[in-house]
Amino acid sequence: MTLPALVERIRAEGRNLGGGILKIDSLLNHQIDPLLMAQMGRRLADEFRHLEIDRILTAEISGIAPALVTGIELGVPLVYARKKRPITMSGPIFLETAPSHTKGGVVELMVSSEFLRPDENVLIIDDFLASGETLKALCRMVEAAQAHVVGVGVVVEKTFEGGRQSLREAGYADLPVYALATIISMNDGTIQLAEA
Amino acid sequence: MTLPALVERIRAEGRNLGGGILKIDSLLNHQIDPLLMAQMGRRLADEFRHLEIDRILTAEISGIAPALVTGIELGVPLVYARKKRPITMSGPIFLETAPSHTKGGVVELMVSSEFLRPDENVLIIDDFLASGETLKALCRMVEAAQAHVVGVGVVVEKTFEGGRQSLREAGYADLPVYALATIISMNDGTIQLAEA
Repeated sequence: MTLPALVERIRAEGRNLGGGILKIDSLLNHQIDPLLMAQMGRRLADEFRHLEIDRILTAEISGIAPALVTGIELGVPLVYARKKRPITMSGPIFLETAPSHTKGGVVELMVSSEFLRPDENVLIIDDFLASGETLKALCRMVEAAQAHVVGVGVVVEKTFEGGRQSLREAGYADLPVYALATIISMNDGTIQLAEA
Repeated sequence: MTLPALVERIRAEGRNLGGGILKIDSLLNHQIDPLLMAQMGRRLADEFRHLEIDRILTAEISGIAPALVTGIELGVPLVYARKKRPITMSGPIFLETAPSHTKGGVVELMVSSEFLRPDENVLIIDDFLASGETLKALCRMVEAAQAHVVGVGVVVEKTFEGGRQSLREAGYADLPVYALATIISMNDGTIQLAEA
């Protein structure tokens, strides 16, 4: 079940920039509609509440907002992986890399080991599920911490980039993966959304 | 009036890394406590609600969370200035620069002109008020858009870095500036917080 209010907004405001790039910076990546975002958090929390989540993991920058609203609903801490090591980050860290197709090259993801603990149930939240590379890197971090990834929730899935399949092949076949909106193709300048 | 729950957490978890650098990444800059963050949003919103805010402006990365929770309470859109131009950012933008003392060098701040409109009442939210350079750059952006900065709200003010004075001298003497927690000195490894 998608979130109809989000699907409508993507239909109205989303732009296909070509190369699989979706511009939705009026509601997610630059401007944020806080009330829509809060609604996303409630929906994501409802989807995963039964899994007894201990912690939410996301990646900066655009994962922070959806992870925060989900965390408010679930009442659990969230940690966002840093892509550049800030001067306040010291001590042992988990470091993973993921190839980035929108930015080119490789993105580093870093989390202080104090904020990913063994045996925790971790829900991963991000803005997009596209190729799945960032999400797989976050999953590997959770495993490196000897914690358990129990679910993945994203704002927008682009099914035509195969991320769900890639997660399955990487050993996460049983992992529940949920998207608030699903885009099934972006051919010829169009944006084709899956119906609820 | 500070936020006592935040002051307590800084007292318990904050670390003075020297050179005026405060590490509070267990609650703001890496891990986020969503319920404390939501409380911050309510307090910030209460402080500025009477100013008829049309929009919140912040800067990525650590400004996003406090701006979002304030936006949820006020029911207004927020926009976060980007520091690196994403591929989805096109069209006319407002660009400002601010010297960064924690990162060294100069930070660029970019906002699409579609998300800062003339005549709007803009509330600026950020994680820190230190030297005030980032906040002044955000104020200049609002002015470039012919909108009005009506208030500045931050999570932590470090009074000993003179940001409030610097804002005053830059022509913002009448601007209400509010901090949820105030640090008056960080000498000899200590963190001295102002009382409520």
